[in-house]
Amino acid sequence: MTATDGPRSLRLAELDAHTFAAWLRDGSGTVLVPVGALEQHGPHLPLGTDAILSSRIAEAAAEATGSLVAQPVSYGYKSQQKSGGGNHLPGTVSLDAATLIGLTRNLVASLLRQGVRNVVFVNGHYENYQFLYEGIDLALADLGLRDGDGPAVLLLSYWDYVSEETLRTVYPEGFPGWDIEHGGVLETSLMLHLEPDLVDLGRAVDHPPAALPRFDRLPVVPGRTPASGCLSAPAGSDATKGGLLFRQVTGDLARDIAAELGGTPG
Amino acid sequence: MTATDGPRSLRLAELDAHTFAAWLRDGSGTVLVPVGALEQHGPHLPLGTDAILSSRIAEAAAEATGSLVAQPVSYGYKSQQKSGGGNHLPGTVSLDAATLIGLTRNLVASLLRQGVRNVVFVNGHYENYQFLYEGIDLALADLGLRDGDGPAVLLLSYWDYVSEETLRTVYPEGFPGWDIEHGGVLETSLMLHLEPDLVDLGRAVDHPPAALPRFDRLPVVPGRTPASGCLSAPAGSDATKGGLLFRQVTGDLARDIAAELGGTPG
Amino acid sequence: MTATDGPRSLRLAELDAHTFAAWLRDGSGTVLVPVGALEQHGPHLPLGTDAILSSRIAEAAAEATGSLVAQPVSYGYKSQQKSGGGNHLPGTVSLDAATLIGLTRNLVASLLRQGVRNVVFVNGHYENYQFLYEGIDLALADLGLRDGDGPAVLLLSYWDYVSEETLRTVYPEGFPGWDIEHGGVLETSLMLHLEPDLVDLGRAVDHPPAALPRFDRLPVVPGRTPASGCLSAPAGSDATKGGLLFRQVTGDLARDIAAELGGTPG
Amino acid sequence: MTATDGPRSLRLAELDAHTFAAWLRDGSGTVLVPVGALEQHGPHLPLGTDAILSSRIAEAAAEATGSLVAQPVSYGYKSQQKSGGGNHLPGTVSLDAATLIGLTRNLVASLLRQGVRNVVFVNGHYENYQFLYEGIDLALADLGLRDGDGPAVLLLSYWDYVSEETLRTVYPEGFPGWDIEHGGVLETSLMLHLEPDLVDLGRAVDHPPAALPRFDRLPVVPGRTPASGCLSAPAGSDATKGGLLFRQVTGDLARDIAAELGGTPG
Amino acid sequence: MTATDGPRSLRLAELDAHTFAAWLRDGSGTVLVPVGALEQHGPHLPLGTDAILSSRIAEAAAEATGSLVAQPVSYGYKSQQKSGGGNHLPGTVSLDAATLIGLTRNLVASLLRQGVRNVVFVNGHYENYQFLYEGIDLALADLGLRDGDGPAVLLLSYWDYVSEETLRTVYPEGFPGWDIEHGGVLETSLMLHLEPDLVDLGRAVDHPPAALPRFDRLPVVPGRTPASGCLSAPAGSDATKGGLLFRQVTGDLARDIAAELGGTPG
Amino acid sequence: MTATDGPRSLRLAELDAHTFAAWLRDGSGTVLVPVGALEQHGPHLPLGTDAILSSRIAEAAAEATGSLVAQPVSYGYKSQQKSGGGNHLPGTVSLDAATLIGLTRNLVASLLRQGVRNVVFVNGHYENYQFLYEGIDLALADLGLRDGDGPAVLLLSYWDYVSEETLRTVYPEGFPGWDIEHGGVLETSLMLHLEPDLVDLGRAVDHPPAALPRFDRLPVVPGRTPASGCLSAPAGSDATKGGLLFRQVTGDLARDIAAELGGTPG
Repeated sequence: MTATDGPRSLRLAELDAHTFAAWLRDGSGTVLVPVGALEQHGPHLPLGTDAILSSRIAEAAAEATGSLVAQPVSYGYKSQQKSGGGNHLPGTVSLDAATLIGLTRNLVASLLRQGVRNVVFVNGHYENYQFLYEGIDLALADLGLRDGDGPAVLLLSYWDYVSEETLRTVYPEGFPGWDIEHGGVLETSLMLHLEPDLVDLGRAVDHPPAALPRFDRLPVVPGRTPASGCLSAPAGSDATKGGLLFRQVTGDLARDIAAELGGTPG
Repeated sequence: MTATDGPRSLRLAELDAHTFAAWLRDGSGTVLVPVGALEQHGPHLPLGTDAILSSRIAEAAAEATGSLVAQPVSYGYKSQQKSGGGNHLPGTVSLDAATLIGLTRNLVASLLRQGVRNVVFVNGHYENYQFLYEGIDLALADLGLRDGDGPAVLLLSYWDYVSEETLRTVYPEGFPGWDIEHGGVLETSLMLHLEPDLVDLGRAVDHPPAALPRFDRLPVVPGRTPASGCLSAPAGSDATKGGLLFRQVTGDLARDIAAELGGTPG
Repeated sequence: MTATDGPRSLRLAELDAHTFAAWLRDGSGTVLVPVGALEQHGPHLPLGTDAILSSRIAEAAAEATGSLVAQPVSYGYKSQQKSGGGNHLPGTVSLDAATLIGLTRNLVASLLRQGVRNVVFVNGHYENYQFLYEGIDLALADLGLRDGDGPAVLLLSYWDYVSEETLRTVYPEGFPGWDIEHGGVLETSLMLHLEPDLVDLGRAVDHPPAALPRFDRLPVVPGRTPASGCLSAPAGSDATKGGLLFRQVTGDLARDIAAELGGTPG
Repeated sequence: MTATDGPRSLRLAELDAHTFAAWLRDGSGTVLVPVGALEQHGPHLPLGTDAILSSRIAEAAAEATGSLVAQPVSYGYKSQQKSGGGNHLPGTVSLDAATLIGLTRNLVASLLRQGVRNVVFVNGHYENYQFLYEGIDLALADLGLRDGDGPAVLLLSYWDYVSEETLRTVYPEGFPGWDIEHGGVLETSLMLHLEPDLVDLGRAVDHPPAALPRFDRLPVVPGRTPASGCLSAPAGSDATKGGLLFRQVTGDLARDIAAELGGTPG
Repeated sequence: MTATDGPRSLRLAELDAHTFAAWLRDGSGTVLVPVGALEQHGPHLPLGTDAILSSRIAEAAAEATGSLVAQPVSYGYKSQQKSGGGNHLPGTVSLDAATLIGLTRNLVASLLRQGVRNVVFVNGHYENYQFLYEGIDLALADLGLRDGDGPAVLLLSYWDYVSEETLRTVYPEGFPGWDIEHGGVLETSLMLHLEPDLVDLGRAVDHPPAALPRFDRLPVVPGRTPASGCLSAPAGSDATKGGLLFRQVTGDLARDIAAELGGTPG
Repeated sequence: MTATDGPRSLRLAELDAHTFAAWLRDGSGTVLVPVGALEQHGPHLPLGTDAILSSRIAEAAAEATGSLVAQPVSYGYKSQQKSGGGNHLPGTVSLDAATLIGLTRNLVASLLRQGVRNVVFVNGHYENYQFLYEGIDLALADLGLRDGDGPAVLLLSYWDYVSEETLRTVYPEGFPGWDIEHGGVLETSLMLHLEPDLVDLGRAVDHPPAALPRFDRLPVVPGRTPASGCLSAPAGSDATKGGLLFRQVTGDLARDIAAELGGTPG
């Protein structure tokens, strides 16, 4: 099956059940699940940024590989001060670990029990990763899948796919580190490329990167997060950088999916 | 605040955090959470029907009352044979009770801790109701909210808002009962009104309503579910009925929200 | 095996282990589990009404089919205002969902691991149903029972067995709906037939059926529940109606059990 | 309040809600909860022995102190080989720890939230104790009750109330130890006194006390449990001993309840 | 394999992974897990007494049988007034039941999945026992190990190994009972033998054994615990008694392990 | 209080309860909890490396600040292929997320309820971090501690304290990244400095750093982990580097603890 032979939509939620059943028989058998959060991203980006970006990246990778995309996990783990500014900030609506683990575990088990062959979680919220991992691991244990011959689940955060070369172009003055890339140049540029109507650069605030301690302190000391809510400023973002990031990441991701799981690379 | 004075989007995911913080101070303080499922709905309706309908109904009610709408809960409790055909059918991706309870509990607690004054769950998947109820109850206990003076949470399934008069118009030959209204005239007509591109009436199958026993049997006997996956046929559905249903339900819902929680009724 | 050939009691709690082991080899292999609640039922009915009724119905159905009856689940899920008046009312002692799910799951798994072939849950408290369902589903998954060839579990609420014809006799002026049948004619008539010493009709209050909103609101607004605690008045109850209800329901239930699971119908 | 001034039944399940509410205002405020198990007790005693005995003891203690008795917890923790013969034996239907803890926690919280002042758990199944303790402890933490000025919960196993003097009378040849008193002289004598119709001494088997190792081994080695299922033989049981045990234990228990919690000692 | 042929350390934490893998192939396959608590033991014994004693006993039994010893479970279940003085006392850092059950369950499953053949839990804190039992039982169910042909897990509290003869020597004036042996002669003598530098007999307080009620009361009445925190005084403790206890207990334990699980008895 | 004025041991497990109670009144009130894992670290390092290192670092920081050190959490979250080689490797004994979260939550709540003012988790196993974070967050919610005026909990992984300058000295040819520093130069050098008897450099294997994909795949493909189990080789490790690392890290950590929580910096 190639990307043009399949169902008329690559969004699982838009397919009817009978078409999906046919795809289970004939298609690549890979379903991508975007994961995000409802989290403050400063004054210039929408609260749903993480799920918007992971959904768009998953859709592009699915299109290139004949895969389908499930509805995103729209809510994520608690925002942490050192990577997202902190869970105390307005607009950040978060799940406990147990809930996110359970949600992931149920999705993996439910998809694989239907005949889906592989599942790929495309994460867009830093704090989620370990809980997604645990949910996947528990689901595979539930299903008795302990070695690599049967179905596989991949888990990744999309920024791990940004290449060194892309980084040099996007951050000509040096890359500040993924952990404080919250509301910064990466996310803003991607949004300007993909959803410009949801970005208001006129509201962006310029400030130096947040200087955060080497530890997490709980309860959080709110004053350590910049007033904007961003850990680094979006200055220097543009849609061109966003387009470059998007193409490089989705291309590499599609190639990995094809190489690991089969399907048609882009 | 009226519906026209608020933020430029009524979708929480599309607002930035600073705008949301301003709305918390000045707005109605009510957030609606649509709830659905990824569940087979026969050959003519998409898997995401329940979340699509509850989202559209929630958005209309929010617009009429100056409220905001959170991202839908896109996955729901297991499909049961007597109300959804059964959890064994392809395309039905389900959560365990504990996960749905936890998700609801976390959303209520997280929203109320931010200063949201009231939350309204608009349910579109029959099987979810009791688990949403438990999640709300546990969250209010977590927050120490045991009497009615503080924040309130409303929970409803949208079909409970269909009036007797509307029923008579939509089902001129008599209403078959909500439990077997799965993939039938109500959902199909609403989808034809709201998302006609996602409906393919040419694939609809006509058959008598399912005759199901008075008990649930587990494991399910698959042969008791019609091969279409629908519990009643969509014959007789049209967009006009869908428009009537939509306007009557959203109008009544908005009036209830305004009367219970304040805000501007439609 | 007929009802007279088996153990001297049909209550599991009154049998010794060796007799039970013999019945596992030779008997129908079906165990019924009544489920109730400790919940206010107005001034004229006892708090234990739900478990009393489900136990008596289960015993009659067991007698007719050579089955056994386990001790009832005497505590149930929280009373909800629209079906039971609300969990805030004195005398209502309730379980969280997780507990009721766990209890059901453990009972199913423990009974089936012993060689019991089928389990039938006879529910007498509206709010329990979905949590019993989840417990059964999880237990079957624990045991790896995913298709219908092995043991089966049936779940039902006894009022779903009341026929249209019986309804017309019991409610000559029209049936008000199961949800507000709390402390009303159905339960009161059954109790007058089965346990008249536990009913005090002299304390019954007459009032119109409760007019409750289309939503659940939490925390509950107590004033929406009638002061009696009943959602409809017991006026018109009598033991004759109770006898009719009891015979029709238990007869139909026994026939269903025999047809689905084997054993001797009444 | 004395035992003769209160409600017409001391069983909570047989009282109506309004009578219970009056008792909450005027009565001792103490509710006893018997706890048992559905567990094999050899060929001469019924599976429900533990709940039967704890219920009868609780009722006697309640009558003597103006207290009420809730429905028993009829199912208990897994039977352990060294105290109950083992969970593998037919007729033993058991709960996981989490379920029994949750059940206890819910009962304590639900009773105390209603205005019950004190709760007394009367345990009749050795294996339950620690899980009841945990449930009580968690409920008190849920309610913020960390010191002794408010409501109190008592927990006891009824055999801890058997005095040295009674032991000497019941076991003239020396007491073999509580742990192997399963299906032996204590339980059999009490049942002969309280429920002789449920005992069949003609089926009792005589054998030496079980010689069990100093460790628990899992999975259990079934051959270490005597074939009868009893850990010591009931030889020497009689109703007179049962009557002595019952009167001494319930008398001491009533005195402790009165001294600790108020109310009228027997 | 004999005790002298194995790895250079019998502590799992001090072995490298490749040596451990070789031992899995060639060794006895038995791993001992000591369990303790961080709990007040009066003014003369350290908070870690329970894990220190169970570790030392486990190491001696491992040495005698060619087994290995895992890191101790250093934290235990809540101290109960009747066996440990109570959880309210400073220095007592405790786990909820669910955590201790989960920890045990994970350790058993993780060890057995690696090829460890048998696991022995050596408990040193009275309150832990039932929760360790549940964790073991759940792990074996997770692994599908329901009969005795495969791996086995033993569970014991070390004081259950003290013989009648040893008791007579250690308590020449009569044994007061294990439940109030908290901070008393047994633990103090063992510590004087094994870790004299951690005992300060000059700080020991002499007082009669605690007289505690036949029930547990929660919240605890603090005044019922002696001010020392000990339930019986350490008067009469000495290192000679400790040596006797240690040799008798570890010798018997090693013999049981060898007889049940194979390996070389001491 | 300074480091020399306090109890004779800085290990909580070696103090008696009365000395601890005095320290709660007079001391710094800070308790450090080291966290590790039982995880393969190649052929040259022991399985307990992570807890050994975090314990020694915590003890040095405690000594410099007048703090105490609790028993380590000796078991950790599952080893992940990209940071620890994978959970399938012999010697790796792991906890589920729920257990590690529960353990952390219980420790924080139990310590703070006693009067401990601050808790510092010193993590030595990469995979643990997020679960420790969740446990701390839940405990603070349990205790109602939502803002920064009361007790504080710090969480850190010790390698986050390695300075750029130290890195340049330890890795003269460039730092390969923390994620593949498993069994490599950092851990080996620290162990050579702190516990040389537990290191066997003669067994170390030299190989290039592991080249792992940008995603996690589950079930793991075992061949992607080097046969040694190390993700980078220990070549170039020595005790001098270990001493430098130890002094720089513990010095900086002590300064942070003193600045954040009070106490005497080193």
